[in-house]
Amino acid sequence: MGVLQVGIIGGSGYVAGELIKLLLVHPQVQLKYVESQQALDKRLWEEHAFLYGLTELGFQAYSLEKASECQLIFVAKPHTKAMDYVADLLTQEIKVIDISADFRLRDEGSYAEWYKMKHKYPQLLKRAVYGLPELYSEQIKGSSLVANPGCYPTGAILGLAPLLADRLIDPQQIRICAYSGLSGAGRTPQAGQNLFIDVYGNLRPYKVNQHPHIPEIEQELSRLYKSAAHISFIPHLAPINKGIYSTIQLKLLQQTGLDKLLECYRKFYRRRPFIRIYNTGHYPQILNVVNTNFCDIGLSLDPEQQALTVFSAIDNTLKGAAGQAVQNMNLMFGFKESSGLPFAACLESQESVGL
Amino acid sequence: MGVLQVGIIGGSGYVAGELIKLLLVHPQVQLKYVESQQALDKRLWEEHAFLYGLTELGFQAYSLEKASECQLIFVAKPHTKAMDYVADLLTQEIKVIDISADFRLRDEGSYAEWYKMKHKYPQLLKRAVYGLPELYSEQIKGSSLVANPGCYPTGAILGLAPLLADRLIDPQQIRICAYSGLSGAGRTPQAGQNLFIDVYGNLRPYKVNQHPHIPEIEQELSRLYKSAAHISFIPHLAPINKGIYSTIQLKLLQQTGLDKLLECYRKFYRRRPFIRIYNTGHYPQILNVVNTNFCDIGLSLDPEQQALTVFSAIDNTLKGAAGQAVQNMNLMFGFKESSGLPFAACLESQESVGL
Amino acid sequence: MGVLQVGIIGGSGYVAGELIKLLLVHPQVQLKYVESQQALDKRLWEEHAFLYGLTELGFQAYSLEKASECQLIFVAKPHTKAMDYVADLLTQEIKVIDISADFRLRDEGSYAEWYKMKHKYPQLLKRAVYGLPELYSEQIKGSSLVANPGCYPTGAILGLAPLLADRLIDPQQIRICAYSGLSGAGRTPQAGQNLFIDVYGNLRPYKVNQHPHIPEIEQELSRLYKSAAHISFIPHLAPINKGIYSTIQLKLLQQTGLDKLLECYRKFYRRRPFIRIYNTGHYPQILNVVNTNFCDIGLSLDPEQQALTVFSAIDNTLKGAAGQAVQNMNLMFGFKESSGLPFAACLESQESVGL
Amino acid sequence: MGVLQVGIIGGSGYVAGELIKLLLVHPQVQLKYVESQQALDKRLWEEHAFLYGLTELGFQAYSLEKASECQLIFVAKPHTKAMDYVADLLTQEIKVIDISADFRLRDEGSYAEWYKMKHKYPQLLKRAVYGLPELYSEQIKGSSLVANPGCYPTGAILGLAPLLADRLIDPQQIRICAYSGLSGAGRTPQAGQNLFIDVYGNLRPYKVNQHPHIPEIEQELSRLYKSAAHISFIPHLAPINKGIYSTIQLKLLQQTGLDKLLECYRKFYRRRPFIRIYNTGHYPQILNVVNTNFCDIGLSLDPEQQALTVFSAIDNTLKGAAGQAVQNMNLMFGFKESSGLPFAACLESQESVGL
Repeated sequence: MGVLQVGIIGGSGYVAGELIKLLLVHPQVQLKYVESQQALDKRLWEEHAFLYGLTELGFQAYSLEKASECQLIFVAKPHTKAMDYVADLLTQEIKVIDISADFRLRDEGSYAEWYKMKHKYPQLLKRAVYGLPELYSEQIKGSSLVANPGCYPTGAILGLAPLLADRLIDPQQIRICAYSGLSGAGRTPQAGQNLFIDVYGNLRPYKVNQHPHIPEIEQELSRLYKSAAHISFIPHLAPINKGIYSTIQLKLLQQTGLDKLLECYRKFYRRRPFIRIYNTGHYPQILNVVNTNFCDIGLSLDPEQQALTVFSAIDNTLKGAAGQAVQNMNLMFGFKESSGLPFAACLESQESVGL
Repeated sequence: MGVLQVGIIGGSGYVAGELIKLLLVHPQVQLKYVESQQALDKRLWEEHAFLYGLTELGFQAYSLEKASECQLIFVAKPHTKAMDYVADLLTQEIKVIDISADFRLRDEGSYAEWYKMKHKYPQLLKRAVYGLPELYSEQIKGSSLVANPGCYPTGAILGLAPLLADRLIDPQQIRICAYSGLSGAGRTPQAGQNLFIDVYGNLRPYKVNQHPHIPEIEQELSRLYKSAAHISFIPHLAPINKGIYSTIQLKLLQQTGLDKLLECYRKFYRRRPFIRIYNTGHYPQILNVVNTNFCDIGLSLDPEQQALTVFSAIDNTLKGAAGQAVQNMNLMFGFKESSGLPFAACLESQESVGL
Repeated sequence: MGVLQVGIIGGSGYVAGELIKLLLVHPQVQLKYVESQQALDKRLWEEHAFLYGLTELGFQAYSLEKASECQLIFVAKPHTKAMDYVADLLTQEIKVIDISADFRLRDEGSYAEWYKMKHKYPQLLKRAVYGLPELYSEQIKGSSLVANPGCYPTGAILGLAPLLADRLIDPQQIRICAYSGLSGAGRTPQAGQNLFIDVYGNLRPYKVNQHPHIPEIEQELSRLYKSAAHISFIPHLAPINKGIYSTIQLKLLQQTGLDKLLECYRKFYRRRPFIRIYNTGHYPQILNVVNTNFCDIGLSLDPEQQALTVFSAIDNTLKGAAGQAVQNMNLMFGFKESSGLPFAACLESQESVGL
Repeated sequence: MGVLQVGIIGGSGYVAGELIKLLLVHPQVQLKYVESQQALDKRLWEEHAFLYGLTELGFQAYSLEKASECQLIFVAKPHTKAMDYVADLLTQEIKVIDISADFRLRDEGSYAEWYKMKHKYPQLLKRAVYGLPELYSEQIKGSSLVANPGCYPTGAILGLAPLLADRLIDPQQIRICAYSGLSGAGRTPQAGQNLFIDVYGNLRPYKVNQHPHIPEIEQELSRLYKSAAHISFIPHLAPINKGIYSTIQLKLLQQTGLDKLLECYRKFYRRRPFIRIYNTGHYPQILNVVNTNFCDIGLSLDPEQQALTVFSAIDNTLKGAAGQAVQNMNLMFGFKESSGLPFAACLESQESVGL
């Protein structure tokens, strides 16, 4: 197989920087084209300083012709803006991984409610595959439009999926308390929000019960449960750069031992290279997943109360965004699932045997 | 009224340093005596470097005679060690504020279960007043032994008290997700736990469902509810120095509007100078309480699910420890409740009118 | 003496917030008037959230009449904008402490060169007193216009003054390597500069040999030396909120022992309450000065090379800005020099005996 | 060429963790043997939690027989302890890269002075090659004992080498102000030093003019200058995990333009894949080198004073330790110099053409 030519539409954001970093070292890929209106004509390193000396590529204007030289385009434009690019690219038979939220919700009503805009391409919504490889690897392999999941949904859904699939918990009592690092807030300054002095030494919630990742999480949990699941979702900002830590407090529907619960997780995620299930008494922490594509999961049970707590940790810029996009690309083009991702050399065996 | 002579038993820890800082500037107090075995004969600033030039006091050996020159002693010894000092001091009619956990639990069985030691002074347990001034100010005024509350319990109980007193929530579905800064972990090194490299950039839980603050919280919530309340309590470490942020997810027993809930809080905490209730859409954050004795509280309601979320923020070293100890001292000796505490000059009016 | 009525022109910035915090608790002062165009009609706490519940004051429009009800106005407007307010206020016999850089340089040519604007009030430049109380306390007492020093100059000049006054070092070989926390960069977002993700985990220089604090430092060092002194000044950003750490590497003109050098510092700063000189082998650190008005100073000598290193540490928002402004106010109005500043109760003795 | 079998003696420290991470993914290497006395019989991930699921290797006891199965051993024992292991291994014709300081100083007198111990293997000192590939690549290729440089020396020597080789600066006026992250302080707790609460929000110097990296830097600078060079070296701790930032203030011996100086650097480092020279007006920052093996270098000139400032930035755990060790291994065994290091795929071209 020859080298895959890929491009990025919207190359100046934080996640795009992480994606470029991965693509430049991916053994089966060549990064050909990086579009950015706001960084037009700059070299990549002028916007992503860590790239100095690593590539001579520069930012270019949007051009469908240019994009057509690529077999795959990553769209990293803001929500509500991304859909036009996606629709345009699909007309040329270019495969697309959309990192925005524009194609994650299957229901156009829900999209309109949460993103305050009527979706312009409802037929594409139906065609899009939700790009969480641990749930949809087969569909991703055959897809030309993959909607890369949100960062919070990745941590929350992966933490909950086995419990809902096996109907072990009360789907009306899912309490998610999540803390995210600031890379999730992007590079656009917002006074009082993402300045260093706003965040340093601080902890605080935001978008309480109003975060647009709520419908995305509920959509996937409900599909797994095969009936409506509801969450209470409280996102917070933590003074770290990368990482999302989700603490999910649940009610078991019936008495179940921790060993059995862990077994259920291990079975559900068998042969999934990026899921690590922790043994009893051990818990995920951000330092174990930062700069990796892992989603680490741990459980704690209070048997008297039938209260189960699930912990999940991801790097929001990798498993929560750019890393997952590369994982999706690997599936779409028949590469090893971990190809080009951190620790790929160690993970190839996992892909066949599981953790 | 003359100046109150006070002393500290156990003066080398982190909280003791904060307490010394407060006592040195308190207008009605003179710090006479600071005991420390491990820092014996050092000057205070050799252990608490920020005190350089502020006091010539040094650490002294334990002596009941020395202590007897004080009208009040703060005991800041580790749990299970503190009780002997307390018992000893009380024999001399010296009033005591115990910052350890030794006199917080009213039930000796519970103490034995959580602190792995039979309590040696069960009769003193009965005599001790739980030093949360927002609940027990009258008892504190007349007490000779005040058990200063734990840091997590302060944030959690203050966040929940009005709801339990008015029986508005399900007392079996109290999900507390709390993050603490590292000052709560003290100054004793623990490899893999409280080194800078263990914490920086990290988020992680610890003592999941096993933290000894659990029985303390449940004791007070049950008293308020007048029936057993149970919590799920998940403490985490956040890479900050000072502060505890508690996110408490709850189920309302019946449909209740946010305005009415806020009104219930404002009424419960009327004329309490250190409680600040946030208006709808505003939430506490650590930066607003750090280096103060405030407990800031905010609410969010998801009416469809009858899901209520309470947020509380404190500085664990002040309202969660040394500041609360000073507040208790103020009550015990008839000073203004905010005397010697940050923003005292602004708070005196609050003490009569409330926020 | 009655209570002093004071006001602030430019009340929405970071330093203004710190100043408000100090003024609200100052025992001899009443904050009457806070101007801000950009926060007009908001309450103070809507801009400085930590003030919630502490004051009912709101931001008002600029009005010379309003200002005239105050005996002292702090001007906290940006450089080049502040001078008009200052000139206006002085016409009404209102005393002014200007926190901007507009009246710090005595030489209008130098002002024009570094601030890219011809100074509009050269006669006021002459009248202004440079508000570094450790050098100019007598002049400050009689002044109606005090130019509050810059943050870096405060740390650097205080660290160097005794050496230049006693002509102990080569004034052409002064190498200053300084690191500042982000509060010095203010609350105006600058993409790539002061966002959390730009700063976290990072160290980097900025305005290398181009920082406008250079002429201010050289002006004062030259006055002390009574001949031209030159500095190499390299400012950096450190991922902390508050604090400036200056490491100053010097060449002694002749062999001098460390004890003698320390003695020289202690003599120069006798009875100055906010200077703490460290003993041999001890060095300042940010944690010892943060949230105080201290400037801590330490020395290290490499006798073989006649190389002297001076370390100074301040809280840039206090001794480097708002605290020093209050110290200046205290001198101007005959209060105790430490009145209303952190640890005032401990410092009153220092004011007469020295550290 | 077959796969190279390598081992580590002293596998539980922080740097060893980074080294394991690199070796596990190196395409030409197999990690066979990891010794640790203190972690004996644990799995690697029990000590380095981020390795969970990546390797089944465990820590083993020291055994020369075991070590002999490897062609190369990395010794990561503490200074003064490492030398015995090194001597032992060399008897078996096993090549050694020693990460301790035991073989860095060529002069035994200097070793005795700075490490307070007479060196036991002076003949090996002579045999050892100082493992800074940018200066000694040829010698490293043929060596069986490479002394991996210290972290500060790597940043300082690389920042200064071209200037000393070309005799452009005064070798008696080299003022180094360096800040290091805490990973350099290792994983052994030291109360008051490397706890989170000691470091967070803090900046402070340590081992002022006493750091054992001083003789190492002076040794290499003197060799480059072909005559004695002296430094003033002031190390500080910064509240970051990884990175060393060196700000080096210098006196040019004669007027030289910045362009010419940059040209001199570019020529000196031609075809060195891990050196990045910044253009005029741009400066290194930690965020650009963290998690890479780069040493980034920038210059600023104050022509009036003939004052030159050099900035260098490295990741102390990679270019300052484990990464440089892998780079040395690559040279010793004929692999591409960047093999197995971050961005290897981008750097192969650099190895032939230079930046």
